[in-house]
Amino acid sequence: MEHLEGRQSVLAALAARQRTIRVVLIHQGAHEEKVRDVLDAAAAAGVPVRRVDRRELDALVHGATHGGVVAIASPKPRTSISELIRFMDALTEQPLLLLLEGIGDARNLGFTLRSAEALGAHAVLVKKHLWDFDPVEVARPASGAYERLPLVQVEGVEPLTQLQRLGVRVIGCIAGAKRGMYDADLTLPTLVAIGGEKRGLSGALRAICDSFITIPTRGGASSLSLSHAAAIVLAEAMRQRGTRK
Amino acid sequence: MEHLEGRQSVLAALAARQRTIRVVLIHQGAHEEKVRDVLDAAAAAGVPVRRVDRRELDALVHGATHGGVVAIASPKPRTSISELIRFMDALTEQPLLLLLEGIGDARNLGFTLRSAEALGAHAVLVKKHLWDFDPVEVARPASGAYERLPLVQVEGVEPLTQLQRLGVRVIGCIAGAKRGMYDADLTLPTLVAIGGEKRGLSGALRAICDSFITIPTRGGASSLSLSHAAAIVLAEAMRQRGTRK
Repeated sequence: MEHLEGRQSVLAALAARQRTIRVVLIHQGAHEEKVRDVLDAAAAAGVPVRRVDRRELDALVHGATHGGVVAIASPKPRTSISELIRFMDALTEQPLLLLLEGIGDARNLGFTLRSAEALGAHAVLVKKHLWDFDPVEVARPASGAYERLPLVQVEGVEPLTQLQRLGVRVIGCIAGAKRGMYDADLTLPTLVAIGGEKRGLSGALRAICDSFITIPTRGGASSLSLSHAAAIVLAEAMRQRGTRK
Repeated sequence: MEHLEGRQSVLAALAARQRTIRVVLIHQGAHEEKVRDVLDAAAAAGVPVRRVDRRELDALVHGATHGGVVAIASPKPRTSISELIRFMDALTEQPLLLLLEGIGDARNLGFTLRSAEALGAHAVLVKKHLWDFDPVEVARPASGAYERLPLVQVEGVEPLTQLQRLGVRVIGCIAGAKRGMYDADLTLPTLVAIGGEKRGLSGALRAICDSFITIPTRGGASSLSLSHAAAIVLAEAMRQRGTRK
């Protein structure tokens, strides 16, 4: 079991129903009206709620940002490639997937999940051998998106070629690409692959990319972080897809 | 005096010449070829270099990310509004300014500066009464942009109305605006104002905005963080301005 910290994460987990939630802990001093939605969501999900004192909460949590609301739950399940494929089959629009390679920082992953959900990505794939992210550090900046968005861990590139055989175009986003992202068609079934800041996309991943794009930036020393690059490309995909609010 | 940590920050500060750098400290075990560019830049700027042992470095720095390169320097100077106006006068293109209100996290500010520079913003204004950012925490994610980009601290809205009188349009980026950012002309002299995640833009700032835009996102619980919203709007301004790489 792990724990979830803060109203937003707990509410999102209760609504998303991806985790098994054993209990919701609420600080006994919390005002009824401030936790009313948490109590309602827990009741709707059949999850018990326990009032606890500050000491019991502090023994569980990392920081001071939980605001008196914590849940004990099974880990967020990762989605398998075959589950992802079934999920894509059920979509009524062309799949838009984001693949992150070489991401090491839990907080950056959390921010990226948050942007990815807001900008219409259907799932996020993380290419990583060992899944060693601190779940609380991912969840906090993800602002609920960590609970809702399908998250796929891949090793090697075989899962990606499997997606390619189903018509998904793998587009590598790299600094030196000749084609700017505005000249690529992102309305087709697309997986955007973005590499970590130290090494960029690996040779193995580049070798299977169908094409490459770059985000136009000023020259000079400046560059974009992985999570900001991801947000900008997904915003452009959303613009092209015409799914404006 | 404060200190600067890491090759990238020290190199950027030596090149930008905005700070007075008293001395560059290099770990005595650092390989010559790995710090050659730092030694060259320090020599070019007339800044002394001192080889120090691990203990002396560790006593100065926050973390372990300095890689054996630290500088002791005056604080990064903030740009006044009159200096900003002179700087804008000298530009050969229409000014693109970013204003942040309600930003509390040094690391988020650093990431925002980095994106802002890469995406063509000429200066970043921060509306804040007390400048209490840890400079090392800002500098690290900014990846040199903290040293190069003009940074203006403003209190109240008077400095912004001063810019308006010079033809700068103040465009508020808010969640509920009717107009999407793709329908706004961002090629004119523009200041994009973005508010913190808790409170958004203040009433005082909204009251002087010339217009409002929103970033189209999926409905639902998802939203964008301040630094990601800033990157997306600036990327759109850059697209409109046609300054592609």
